[in-house]
Amino acid sequence: MTTIAVIGASGYAGATLAKLIASSPALTLGGLYVSENSLDAGKPLSQLYPGMLGVVDLPLQGLSAQALAGLCAQCDGVALATEHLVSASLVPQLLQAGLSVFDLSGGHRFKDAAIYPTYYGFEHPHPALLLEAEYGLVDWYAHTLKGCKLIAVPGCYPTASLLALKPLKQAGIFQESTMPVINAVSGVSGAGRKAQLNTHLCEVSLTPYGVLGHRHQPEIETYLGQPVVFTPHLGNFKRGILATITCQVKPGTTEAEIAEAFEIYQGSDKVKLLPAGSWPKVDDVAGSDLCLLAWKLDSQRNVLVVASAIDNLMKGAASQALECINIHFGHEVYS
Amino acid sequence: MTTIAVIGASGYAGATLAKLIASSPALTLGGLYVSENSLDAGKPLSQLYPGMLGVVDLPLQGLSAQALAGLCAQCDGVALATEHLVSASLVPQLLQAGLSVFDLSGGHRFKDAAIYPTYYGFEHPHPALLLEAEYGLVDWYAHTLKGCKLIAVPGCYPTASLLALKPLKQAGIFQESTMPVINAVSGVSGAGRKAQLNTHLCEVSLTPYGVLGHRHQPEIETYLGQPVVFTPHLGNFKRGILATITCQVKPGTTEAEIAEAFEIYQGSDKVKLLPAGSWPKVDDVAGSDLCLLAWKLDSQRNVLVVASAIDNLMKGAASQALECINIHFGHEVYS
Amino acid sequence: MTTIAVIGASGYAGATLAKLIASSPALTLGGLYVSENSLDAGKPLSQLYPGMLGVVDLPLQGLSAQALAGLCAQCDGVALATEHLVSASLVPQLLQAGLSVFDLSGGHRFKDAAIYPTYYGFEHPHPALLLEAEYGLVDWYAHTLKGCKLIAVPGCYPTASLLALKPLKQAGIFQESTMPVINAVSGVSGAGRKAQLNTHLCEVSLTPYGVLGHRHQPEIETYLGQPVVFTPHLGNFKRGILATITCQVKPGTTEAEIAEAFEIYQGSDKVKLLPAGSWPKVDDVAGSDLCLLAWKLDSQRNVLVVASAIDNLMKGAASQALECINIHFGHEVYS
Amino acid sequence: MTTIAVIGASGYAGATLAKLIASSPALTLGGLYVSENSLDAGKPLSQLYPGMLGVVDLPLQGLSAQALAGLCAQCDGVALATEHLVSASLVPQLLQAGLSVFDLSGGHRFKDAAIYPTYYGFEHPHPALLLEAEYGLVDWYAHTLKGCKLIAVPGCYPTASLLALKPLKQAGIFQESTMPVINAVSGVSGAGRKAQLNTHLCEVSLTPYGVLGHRHQPEIETYLGQPVVFTPHLGNFKRGILATITCQVKPGTTEAEIAEAFEIYQGSDKVKLLPAGSWPKVDDVAGSDLCLLAWKLDSQRNVLVVASAIDNLMKGAASQALECINIHFGHEVYS
Repeated sequence: MTTIAVIGASGYAGATLAKLIASSPALTLGGLYVSENSLDAGKPLSQLYPGMLGVVDLPLQGLSAQALAGLCAQCDGVALATEHLVSASLVPQLLQAGLSVFDLSGGHRFKDAAIYPTYYGFEHPHPALLLEAEYGLVDWYAHTLKGCKLIAVPGCYPTASLLALKPLKQAGIFQESTMPVINAVSGVSGAGRKAQLNTHLCEVSLTPYGVLGHRHQPEIETYLGQPVVFTPHLGNFKRGILATITCQVKPGTTEAEIAEAFEIYQGSDKVKLLPAGSWPKVDDVAGSDLCLLAWKLDSQRNVLVVASAIDNLMKGAASQALECINIHFGHEVYS
Repeated sequence: MTTIAVIGASGYAGATLAKLIASSPALTLGGLYVSENSLDAGKPLSQLYPGMLGVVDLPLQGLSAQALAGLCAQCDGVALATEHLVSASLVPQLLQAGLSVFDLSGGHRFKDAAIYPTYYGFEHPHPALLLEAEYGLVDWYAHTLKGCKLIAVPGCYPTASLLALKPLKQAGIFQESTMPVINAVSGVSGAGRKAQLNTHLCEVSLTPYGVLGHRHQPEIETYLGQPVVFTPHLGNFKRGILATITCQVKPGTTEAEIAEAFEIYQGSDKVKLLPAGSWPKVDDVAGSDLCLLAWKLDSQRNVLVVASAIDNLMKGAASQALECINIHFGHEVYS
Repeated sequence: MTTIAVIGASGYAGATLAKLIASSPALTLGGLYVSENSLDAGKPLSQLYPGMLGVVDLPLQGLSAQALAGLCAQCDGVALATEHLVSASLVPQLLQAGLSVFDLSGGHRFKDAAIYPTYYGFEHPHPALLLEAEYGLVDWYAHTLKGCKLIAVPGCYPTASLLALKPLKQAGIFQESTMPVINAVSGVSGAGRKAQLNTHLCEVSLTPYGVLGHRHQPEIETYLGQPVVFTPHLGNFKRGILATITCQVKPGTTEAEIAEAFEIYQGSDKVKLLPAGSWPKVDDVAGSDLCLLAWKLDSQRNVLVVASAIDNLMKGAASQALECINIHFGHEVYS
Repeated sequence: MTTIAVIGASGYAGATLAKLIASSPALTLGGLYVSENSLDAGKPLSQLYPGMLGVVDLPLQGLSAQALAGLCAQCDGVALATEHLVSASLVPQLLQAGLSVFDLSGGHRFKDAAIYPTYYGFEHPHPALLLEAEYGLVDWYAHTLKGCKLIAVPGCYPTASLLALKPLKQAGIFQESTMPVINAVSGVSGAGRKAQLNTHLCEVSLTPYGVLGHRHQPEIETYLGQPVVFTPHLGNFKRGILATITCQVKPGTTEAEIAEAFEIYQGSDKVKLLPAGSWPKVDDVAGSDLCLLAWKLDSQRNVLVVASAIDNLMKGAASQALECINIHFGHEVYS
C-alpha cells in the first residue's frame, strides 16, 4: 500500500482527490491538511462535504511545522492542491524528506521561470526545481513519471485543449503560421471554494474572462509547441469544461488523416472519440475521469472544429493526479 | 412628479427598485446611495448591473452627512433597501426632514419591539417609531398607506404566505388550534449581494435553513393573527419564491367556500388565481410584479394545499415598494 | 458471479443500475433490454449516455420473445426499470423461469390490488403475485429479501420519506390523529427520459404537482402505517430529492427521545444523521447512494421538522436495487 | 394606433412579441394565431404562460381561412413567428391584403433562393418575393424599413454576430483572407417550445451543434460580406446568447482604430459598449432589448476578441421585431 497525504484538502480539487485516494485499492489516505490558520482546521472533511460521510471521515489538520514533519515521516507521496506559491514554497522540504510530490497547482508546470512574474504574479522561489519537474499529462507523458519525484499535474483547460490538439500537431495537420482558436467554458468549481462576489449564484452567467492573458495560454503553448488564442469563459454550472477549438488545416487535409491522427487514443480507457455526428456535453463527463473528443472537417475551407470535454475537477485535476500517482508508484491505473 | 431616492441601491432589491422608479411615469429617481465607506461609492449603478446601461445611469453616492442633508432637501420620499439596523437608525432624521419613508428592511414591521432582540439580534433604537409605521401589504392595507409617513414594506416570504393565507383566515376556514405548515423556497438573490461561501454557485443546492426560527415566522404570524410553522429553503435559482402551504380546514369545508374566500382578489391586477388543476411555477413570476395562487382541497381529510409564487425582488420587495409609493402619493399604480 | 439483466435500460434509472452492476465485483451484467419496438434497440447504451463509453459497452436489445427466453436461460436475476404495467405483465414468466426479480417500478409495491386502478390507472393483471412480493426498503426489511424471489424496489419519494419517518413512528413520537406533512422536491430525472413539453428546460421551474393525489402517498402510508399529507414538487435540477417533513409530536417529547429514535441508523453506511444545525442539500447526495437526515424540535410547540435527501436515481432507485440484489444473493453490499 | 396580429403566438418568440405589443403605447394587439390544428387553439395565451395573466388575456385562435381573412381585414401588420416554410407560404396573401409583414422566421432573409434547399431543406415557394424583402437589422438598416412591406427580422445568432462584426468590417480592420471565428452559446428557448428529447432538462448541457453547417452561417456571411466560421452551442439556460468572436486584424491595428469603429453605436439606446475590462454576461441582457459589446486587442499577435450578448428572444427576435414595426410605421421606438 502506498500512503498519500493531501495538502489543500478543503478545496474542491483536494477533496475530490481525497475521495479518489480513499476509494483506491492500492492507496491509503495519509492525512488531510489545510493551512495552519484556516478556519477549517480541526473539522472533519465531511463537515464541509456531507456526501463524504462514511467515505472520507478524516479531519482536516492545520499544517504546522510539526504536522509537516509527521506527514513527511509517514507518507510515500503528497498531493498539493494549494495556491501556486504555497506549492512552490513547500516542495523543497517535501522532496528532501524523500516524498514524491504531485503538484496540482501551476507552481511547477514551466521550465521557464520568467513565466511566473508575468502570468502568476510572483517570482518563483525555487526556479532550479522547475527543471526537475515532469508534466503529468498522462496520456502523453506517462513514461516520464516513474522516475521523477516532482510531477506537475496539468491545468484543467490545458488538459482539455492538449488532448484535442496534440494528435493534430504531431500529425503535422495545422496550416503554417495560423493559431488554433480555443474557446473554453468551465464550471464554477474552477474558481475555487472561497467567498467571492463573482461566484455568487446570482452573479454567475456565461461570460468570457481572462481574455488574451490567461495563465493557461502559455501552458497550452508550451506543451503544444505553437501559439494559440485561448479564451476561457465561466459557465453557469458546477463541474466540467468544454473546449471548442477551431483550426486552419493544410489545404487538402482529409478526414482520413484526421482520424488517423486521433488513433493514438485507440485503446485508451480515459480518452474517447465520439462517433461522427455526436458532440460531447459537459454533463457527459461530470463526475467521470474521461475526456470525450469529437471533430468535424470542412474540407472546402480547410477548417477543422474539435470539441473536448472533461470534468475540471477529475481529468482536469484529481483523477489525472490519481493517474500520475498510480503510474509513478507502479500501481494499476484505476480511478 | 414625485422624487424618490434609494438608499442601499447597490443590492438586488435596491437596484431593482431604482429601475422601476426610473421607468415609472409619475416618479423621478432622486439619487442612489450606498454606505459612505462602500467600495461601490462613486461607481455608476450600471457598472454593477450592465443591463441598466441606458436605463439607470446615475452613480452610487456614499451616504455622507452632507449627502443625506442634500437628499432630504431634494426628495419627497426615500426607499431604504438597507440592513435592518441601518434602516432603524436612519428613519428619525428622514421623517424629521418631512420625507415619506418606505423601508424595505425588517426594521419597522413590528409594533412589538421585543421581537428585535430575539429575531433580529439587536435592540430597536427607536421603538416609539414602530407604533407609527404601517405594514405595506398593499393588497390588504392600501387604505392605511396614504396618511402614513413610515411604511414597512413586507418581507418576501410573508408576502407570498400572507396573500395565500389571509383570505382563508378571514373566512374562518382553518380548523381550530392547528397551524398551517408553510414550506417555501427562495432564489439566492434573497441572500443579498455579498461575497459569502453559502451563495457560491457550487455550494448552492436545495436545502432548508433557519428551521423553526426564521425571522419571517413572527412577521407572518403577526399579520395573519395565528401561529404557523414556517420552513424556508434556499433553491438553486436566482429569483422567485414558491410557498406551498398545507392547512387543516374545518370539517365539511367545501371548495365553494374556499373559492369564495379567494374572491377578494377578483379584479386585482397583481394577485391572480390560476385555473383549477394548474400550479404556479417560480419562473412564471420571475421578473414580474404578480402573485400567482392555486389551491386544492381534500374534502375527506379536510386538508387544503395552497401554493403561492412571487418574485422575491419584485412583489416580495421592489414592485411592492413601488405600489406603496404610488398609493401613498396618490399616483396610479403601475409597475 | 451472479448474472443480472436490466430490462428498461435506456431510461435514467435502468442505465444507472446497469453502470452499478457493471462496476460491482460480485455481479455480471447479463444484458440490456428495451421494448422490442424501441428506436433505441440495437444502439450501444453509450450512444445514449456517452459517459458510459468504456464503462458499459453493451448494446440495448429489443425484448423479443426469443430475447426474453435467452435472458431467462442465462441470468440469475433481472431488474425491471420498466413502466408499471410492463413490469406487472413480465413478472410471471420471469418467476416461472426461476429468476429473481427486482422491480424498480410501482408494479408490486402493494398487497392491496385496489390501489392500482385508483393510483396507477390499470387493474393489476396478476394480483396474486402482489402477495408474494417483499418491499425492498433495505434499511428496514433486509431480513425479508433473501428468501423472496420478487422484490419491489421502493419509490424515490417513499424511500426519502420512510427513512425519515419510520424511526419516529416506531418510537411512538407522533401526536395522535395528526398527519405528518411531507413536502418533497425531485429533480427532473424522476420524470423519465422521454420527449415531453413539461420537462423542456424552458418549462421547468419549481412547482408542485400531483397535489393530494400522487401515487407515492399510499406507498408511504402503507409502509409507515399511518396517513400523511404528501406534496411533491418538480425542481430545476437533474438528480436528487429533498423531503422536508413537519410533524406534530406528543407534548413533552424531548430531543433525547428523537435522537434515540434515529439511533437505529447507527452503524449504517447508507443512512447518515447530520450534526445538529446542519441540513442536507440535494447536491450532497447527487450521484451517491447515501440518505442524509437532519431534524430540529420546537419543544414549546411540539413541532418537529425532519429533512431527508437522497439521489432519486440511486438510493431512490438504482443503488437501492443494487443493495436488494446483493442482499438477496448473499453478496457483500457495496455500491 | 397601429394594429398588429401575431401568427405563431404560442411559441417563445411569438408570445414574447405579443407581450411587447400589448405593452406598447402606439400599438394594439390584433389577435394571436396558431396553426388551425394546434392543440393550443382556443386556449388563452395565459394558460401557456401564466405570467401573462392580466398582461395578455387574448385567446390563441386557429388560423383557418376565415380567421386569416378576418385578420387581413382588421390589421395593419402581422408578425410571423412561424416555421420558415409556413412563413414563406403565408406571405403572398398577407401582402396582397395590403398588410405589412414582419417575418421572424428565416423564410425571407436571403435574396439567393438557392440557400433554401441547402440550409433550410425546402425549395422556396415564392423566390420573387425574396427580392422585395429588407433585412431588419435595425441598427444598420433602419432607413430601408419604412418603405418596405416585407421585413425579414434577423436571426438571433446573426444579430449578436453582426452587431459585433459589421463595425470592424466597415472600418476595414480584418486581415485579408482570414475568417473571424464565432463561437456562440444560446439558451434553450432558441430550440422552440415543443416536446423533444434534446431539450429535456436532463439532456441539456453545454455542447456544440450544427458544427460547420448551421443555417445562420450564410446569414452572417451575407450581411457581413465575408466568410466566417460559426459554431453554435446549446447552453444550460433559458434565454440569451453570448457570441465570442476571434479575429485576425491587420498588422498594426490600434486600440484607437477599433474604438473608433465602434463609435457608430454612440448614442444608440440598444447597443452598448462596456467599459474596457468588463465582459458581458448572458444574464445582463436576459429579458432586455439590449446588445452588450466588449473587446480586447492583442496588438503583438494582431488578435482581436469581441464578445456580444443579447437575449435571443428579445433583440434576437421579438424586441428587434418591435423595433422594425415601430420604425416601419413611424412610431417612436420603445420596447
